[in-house]
Amino acid sequence: MGSVFGNKVKISVFGESHGTAIGVVIDGLPSGEHIDMEELNVQMSRRAPGGDKTATPRKEADKPQILSGLIGDVTTGAPLAAVIYNTNTRSQDYGNVMDSPRPGHSDYAAFVRYSGYNDVRGGGHFSGRLTANMVFAGGVIRQILKRRGIDIAAHIYSIGKVCDKAFDPTRISPELIDRLNHEKFALVDKSKEAAMREEVENVRLKGDSIGGVVECIVQGMPAGIGEPMFFGVENVISSAVFGVPAVKGIEFGSGFAGSRLTGSENNDEFYYDGDIVKTYTNNHGGILGGITSGMPIVFRAAVKPTPSISLPQNTVDLTNKENTAISVKGRHDPCIVPRAVPVIEAAAAVAVINMM
Amino acid sequence: MGSVFGNKVKISVFGESHGTAIGVVIDGLPSGEHIDMEELNVQMSRRAPGGDKTATPRKEADKPQILSGLIGDVTTGAPLAAVIYNTNTRSQDYGNVMDSPRPGHSDYAAFVRYSGYNDVRGGGHFSGRLTANMVFAGGVIRQILKRRGIDIAAHIYSIGKVCDKAFDPTRISPELIDRLNHEKFALVDKSKEAAMREEVENVRLKGDSIGGVVECIVQGMPAGIGEPMFFGVENVISSAVFGVPAVKGIEFGSGFAGSRLTGSENNDEFYYDGDIVKTYTNNHGGILGGITSGMPIVFRAAVKPTPSISLPQNTVDLTNKENTAISVKGRHDPCIVPRAVPVIEAAAAVAVINMM
Amino acid sequence: MGSVFGNKVKISVFGESHGTAIGVVIDGLPSGEHIDMEELNVQMSRRAPGGDKTATPRKEADKPQILSGLIGDVTTGAPLAAVIYNTNTRSQDYGNVMDSPRPGHSDYAAFVRYSGYNDVRGGGHFSGRLTANMVFAGGVIRQILKRRGIDIAAHIYSIGKVCDKAFDPTRISPELIDRLNHEKFALVDKSKEAAMREEVENVRLKGDSIGGVVECIVQGMPAGIGEPMFFGVENVISSAVFGVPAVKGIEFGSGFAGSRLTGSENNDEFYYDGDIVKTYTNNHGGILGGITSGMPIVFRAAVKPTPSISLPQNTVDLTNKENTAISVKGRHDPCIVPRAVPVIEAAAAVAVINMM
Amino acid sequence: MGSVFGNKVKISVFGESHGTAIGVVIDGLPSGEHIDMEELNVQMSRRAPGGDKTATPRKEADKPQILSGLIGDVTTGAPLAAVIYNTNTRSQDYGNVMDSPRPGHSDYAAFVRYSGYNDVRGGGHFSGRLTANMVFAGGVIRQILKRRGIDIAAHIYSIGKVCDKAFDPTRISPELIDRLNHEKFALVDKSKEAAMREEVENVRLKGDSIGGVVECIVQGMPAGIGEPMFFGVENVISSAVFGVPAVKGIEFGSGFAGSRLTGSENNDEFYYDGDIVKTYTNNHGGILGGITSGMPIVFRAAVKPTPSISLPQNTVDLTNKENTAISVKGRHDPCIVPRAVPVIEAAAAVAVINMM
Repeated sequence: MGSVFGNKVKISVFGESHGTAIGVVIDGLPSGEHIDMEELNVQMSRRAPGGDKTATPRKEADKPQILSGLIGDVTTGAPLAAVIYNTNTRSQDYGNVMDSPRPGHSDYAAFVRYSGYNDVRGGGHFSGRLTANMVFAGGVIRQILKRRGIDIAAHIYSIGKVCDKAFDPTRISPELIDRLNHEKFALVDKSKEAAMREEVENVRLKGDSIGGVVECIVQGMPAGIGEPMFFGVENVISSAVFGVPAVKGIEFGSGFAGSRLTGSENNDEFYYDGDIVKTYTNNHGGILGGITSGMPIVFRAAVKPTPSISLPQNTVDLTNKENTAISVKGRHDPCIVPRAVPVIEAAAAVAVINMM
Repeated sequence: MGSVFGNKVKISVFGESHGTAIGVVIDGLPSGEHIDMEELNVQMSRRAPGGDKTATPRKEADKPQILSGLIGDVTTGAPLAAVIYNTNTRSQDYGNVMDSPRPGHSDYAAFVRYSGYNDVRGGGHFSGRLTANMVFAGGVIRQILKRRGIDIAAHIYSIGKVCDKAFDPTRISPELIDRLNHEKFALVDKSKEAAMREEVENVRLKGDSIGGVVECIVQGMPAGIGEPMFFGVENVISSAVFGVPAVKGIEFGSGFAGSRLTGSENNDEFYYDGDIVKTYTNNHGGILGGITSGMPIVFRAAVKPTPSISLPQNTVDLTNKENTAISVKGRHDPCIVPRAVPVIEAAAAVAVINMM
Repeated sequence: MGSVFGNKVKISVFGESHGTAIGVVIDGLPSGEHIDMEELNVQMSRRAPGGDKTATPRKEADKPQILSGLIGDVTTGAPLAAVIYNTNTRSQDYGNVMDSPRPGHSDYAAFVRYSGYNDVRGGGHFSGRLTANMVFAGGVIRQILKRRGIDIAAHIYSIGKVCDKAFDPTRISPELIDRLNHEKFALVDKSKEAAMREEVENVRLKGDSIGGVVECIVQGMPAGIGEPMFFGVENVISSAVFGVPAVKGIEFGSGFAGSRLTGSENNDEFYYDGDIVKTYTNNHGGILGGITSGMPIVFRAAVKPTPSISLPQNTVDLTNKENTAISVKGRHDPCIVPRAVPVIEAAAAVAVINMM
Repeated sequence: MGSVFGNKVKISVFGESHGTAIGVVIDGLPSGEHIDMEELNVQMSRRAPGGDKTATPRKEADKPQILSGLIGDVTTGAPLAAVIYNTNTRSQDYGNVMDSPRPGHSDYAAFVRYSGYNDVRGGGHFSGRLTANMVFAGGVIRQILKRRGIDIAAHIYSIGKVCDKAFDPTRISPELIDRLNHEKFALVDKSKEAAMREEVENVRLKGDSIGGVVECIVQGMPAGIGEPMFFGVENVISSAVFGVPAVKGIEFGSGFAGSRLTGSENNDEFYYDGDIVKTYTNNHGGILGGITSGMPIVFRAAVKPTPSISLPQNTVDLTNKENTAISVKGRHDPCIVPRAVPVIEAAAAVAVINMM
C-alpha cells in the first residue's frame, strides 16, 4: 500500500515500466477547476526522456489519456484518472536481469520483498518511468494551487560539484518562476549550464553517471498552515519527496549548513513589512515548528547518481548463489537531475495540497 | 491531528510545557511483552535536562506514571498510556511573551495557526519537553524491537564544526551500541568530547547557542521491509524524525555527499557472505528503492541551534503591530544536540515498528 | 491500533476497567473554543452507572481531570487530554474469570487476540466503562458543533418489545433536543417509561438482561457534506457507532423497513421551502449517495442484551480444555440501553466533526 | 478522497458512468498469487445487467483490461490496476437531468457537494455501474482469501416481503457456498425464486421498484482477528458495505432482532468441539468485542428500492428554483438486489483482507 499518498487529496500510482500502462488516480480534487492540458503536456515533456542531450534516448510518447474526473477541461470532483500506455511492453530482453541485481538499484531489495515475483524489466514498479504519474498529478494540482496564489519552482542546484546560484530564499520573482517552470534544464544562472553539461558528458563517456541536488521553493503559502509534530510541513513534504526514486536526503532552509551555525546566525529576525510579518533572512525555510511562517518554503533534495552504469561492477548471482559481475547493457541516462526538477516540483505540489 | 503517528502502532502525544501534564498513548503494541522500567528510566534521563553540563538547568522529574496497558511489567495489548505531571505549571512568568515572538521559534507560526489561543508558556505544545513522550514511547518500542534482533543507536555526529568519527556504515559492534545507548554525551570517539564541550561553552558564555548533527543506525533489520514510493523506509523515518523539534534536514547513507559522486563511486557492490547477500560499502544506507537491503539503516539528522538566546534580536510586537527587539530571559540550553540523541533513536524506533 | 478514530479530529482512547485510569486524547480541535465543564459533567453523569434504577450499582465518580489542551475553559488547539482515575483498581476478585469466558462477552475473542495477556478484570479495555471516554470526547465536540448550528439528540427507541414514539424524521424541536440531552432515561413519549422500566425489572428479577434500540438524530447539518463511497456519512457514522460495545446493527432513515418498500413509497419527494430544498418525508435519513441532503440525519442502533447475567450458562474451561458452566457473580446492569443513549450521541458527534 | 478504502490493501475506485472508463487500483496485494481470470469474469457477469430478467436491459461488456500488477496471471506485488472502457459515453441525453434531481437519488446531494460540476449522466461517479470495480477488486481478493481457507457467500435474503431461508449461522456447506458463488439469482431455497420474481415483475409493470436484504457469510476466519473499538470487524465491514450504493442498514448476527431478546436468549454458549471452541448458536455473528470468535461472520445489508422509477414524482427545478415533477425516462432496473449479492460479497472481501 505504498503507492498511495495523501489524506485530503489522495494520489494512487500504478504501473510497471514494461507492463501495459502506467497511470494515476487523483481523488479529492475540488470540482469546477479548469485544467490546461497544454500546460500539463509541457510539464510531462520536461520529465520525459529524449528531449535533451543529458537524458536517456528511450522514446516515450507520455501522452496521458484521461479516463474520468473531467468534463471537457473542468474537474467534476470525481477521481481524476489518467493512463499512459507503454509502447515498450512485455519484451523478453530483461529475461535474466534478476539473476544479477544491479548495485545501487532496487533490484535486490525488491526481489526479497516480492519473493522474486516482481516485474524486473526496466525496474518494474520502481522504474523512474513511474514519475510521469507524479508529474501528471502534480501538474494538475499546481494549476489549482496557482489559482490560489501558490507557485512552485525548482532548479538544478548542483550536478556533481558544479553549482547553480541558489534561490534568494526571501523572494523569487514571478518571471523567474515562470521561466524555470518551462525549462528542461532549469537553472537560476544559465551561465552554469555549459559546465554542468560538461560534467555530465564526462561521466557519460566513461559509462558512468553523476548525481546532484534539486532546490525547490513554494511561494505564496499563507502563514499558519501545517500541524505540529508529525504532520508538519517538513514531515509531509519529505514523505512525498522521498517518493521520488534516487532522492536520499532533504533539507529545509539552512538545513545541514544551519547545524554548524549559532543561534544568532541562524535565527531569522522578524519585522513588519506594512501589515505583514516577514523575516529578513529565511534560514527557517518558511517553516517554524512545522507550520508555515508566510515566508517562502525552501528545500533541497539530494539525488544520487543513477545506479545503472556500463562500467563493470561486482554483484551476486541469486540463482546460483555465487559472486559474479555485471555491466548494465544499453544506453543509460548519465544524469537524471534535470528531469528530477519537474518531479520534485510535482511532489511538493502533492504535499502542499494535502496541507491546505 | 498532527500529534498522532503511525499505522500499525499509533503514538498519540499530548501536553503543553506548563500545563498539568504531558503524556503519550501507544496503541497497537503486541501483548505479552516485558517492559524493563529501569531501562526505560535510563532513556528518559538521557533526554532530561539537568544531568549534564551542556543542558538547561531546569529541573524536571520526568517520572512517567503508567495509566493503562501493563499488568505488572507485561503489555496487555490495550493502549499503553503514560503521563508525566508538570511541576512547573500554569505560572504567570510568560504572561506577555506572545507580544514578541522569538526569532527562529514556533511562536509566530503557532500564533497564526491557533489565532493566539495556544499556550505560549515554555513553547506550549511545541516545547522540547514534549520529546520526553517520544523517548518514553520509543523506549518501550526499542525493548520490543531488541527482542526481535533490531538495535538502534545514535551519536553526536557533530556540534558546530567539531565532528565525531562517523559510524562504520557496514557494521557496528554490540558493545558500541550498548555503550552509546547508555551515555548522555554519546560519541563514537570519546576523545572528541572536550572539543565539543568547549564549542558549547563558548556560545553559552556569549548568550548564544549552537546546532549539530545526530547520526543514527538501525541494525538487524531483515531485507525486504518497506513499501515502494510513499511508505518506503526513508519516507516513514523522515516523517517521524521531522517530528523532533529543531530537525531541519535528514539524509540516508551517503546522502548529500553522495549527490556529488559518480555511480561507480556511490553504488554498493554485492557479495555473498556465506548465504547472506551483503554490500562491501553502504552508501545506500541500508535502503534500496525504499526497501531494506539487510545492511544497517544509516541516517543523519541536522539539528538547528536552539532559537532561544539571550543576545538581543529584532522581532515584532504583535499587539501594537510594530517592530521591537527581544532578549530571551532566563538560562537556556545552549546546545540540545546531546539530548536530541535519545529522541532521534526513539523516533527511529517508532518509525521502524510501523514498517514491521 | 483500534482505539484511535478520525482523520481530522483524532480520538485516542485508553484504559482498562480495573487499571490505574482511563482517558482520551482529542487531537485536532479548533482553538479558541469555550468548553462548559458543567454541561460536560451532565453528559458524563447521564452515562455513569448508579444514578438510575435500571443501572448497575457500581459507584464511579467519573470526574475527568484535564491534562492539556485547555487554558481556563478555552481550547488551545493542542491535543485535549483527560483522564479518569479508577477507584476500583487492580483487585484480585477477577482472578480466574478467564478460565471461563462469559457467553456473549468479548472474553474469549480477546483471550485469543491477546494470547491471554489482556486484562480480564471487568472486561479490561473492552469494558463498558471505557465509553466514559467517548462521552467526554463527544461532549466536548458537541459543544463545538452546537456553536455551528448542529444539534445531536438520541432517545430510547425500544427496550425489548416496548417502543417509544419515533422521532419525526423531518424536524425535531429545539425544546425536545434540549430535554432529551439532559435526561437519564431519554424518551420522546415519557408515558412509555413505566412499561419500559417494568420490562427491565422483569429481567432483573430473573438474573437476566434485555436489549434495545437507540434512535439518534443530527440536526442542522448543511447539505453537501460527505464523500462518495467509503467516506460517506453512513460509512463514517457506522465506523464510530460500532465502536460502542454491544451495538450489533445500524440503519439510516427507513433502513431495514425501507427494504420492504417500493421506490414510490420510499423515495422522498423534493420541494422548495422558500429558498431551501427539502423533502416531504425523510426515508433517506438525511443522506443521499453518502452525502447530506440538508434534512436531519436519522439513524438507529441495535444494542444487544448485556451478556453478563446471573443465570447459569454453558461455557468452556480454557485451562483444562473442558466444558463447564458459569453464573456471573455480582449485580449486573440488566439493561444498558438508557446509558447507551449519551454514548451513541457522542459517537455521532465524533463522526460528524470528522466530516466537516 | 472518499473513493479509496483500506489500510493494508488499498482499493482506489474511479470512473463515471458515461465517462471514458471506470476502473480500480488495488495496492498492497501479496505477490505470487495466481488469479483465475475466468472465475473473475464469472463474478463480473453476476453483477452485470442484462443477463437476468430482473435486471436493467442496458448492455455492458464489463470486460476489465489489466494495466499493471500481473505477469501472466500472477501478481507481481505492484498495484493491480484494471479498467473497463465505457461504450455508452459522453452522450447528450442527460442534458438537463440536473434541473430536476430524482427523488431518492444522489443527484441533489451531489449537486450541492460539487457545485453542479459533477457528471450527472447516469449518476456519474455515483452510478451503480461503479460497483463493477468493487466486484473486480473483491473477485481478486476472494481468490487470495480462498487459498487461505476463507470463503464468502451471500444470497438474496428477501425482496420486498418475500424471504429466502436464512443461512444456518453456525455452518454453511462448501457445496452451498460454491453454488451461491456462481448464481445470478442466489437463493438458499430455490423454491422461493418464483415468488420473488413475481414481486419484481409486479413493480416493474407499474413503473416502480422494490428493495430487499442481502445476507452474507464469511466462513473460515480464524478467531482473534480484529481490533477493539474503531477497527473491529463490524466497523471495517460496515465501512466497506456502506460503500455499496443503496445500502441503508447493516446488522451482524441477531442484529435488530437480538435487541428484543434477553441475554439468556441471545448469548451463545461455548463448548469444545474437539480442541476447538465453538458456540452452539451464533447470535453474535462470529464477532465478540469487535474480534472474531472463529464462528462464521454473518451480516445482513438492507438495500433500498432503486430510486429511478417511471412513476411521476414531485421534485424541484434547481435552475428556476421552483417546484416541478419528474418521471424518469427509459427502462430501469426494478430490483437491484440480485445484482447486489456479488457486490456485497466483494465489499466483505475487501474489508476482510484489510483485517488479516
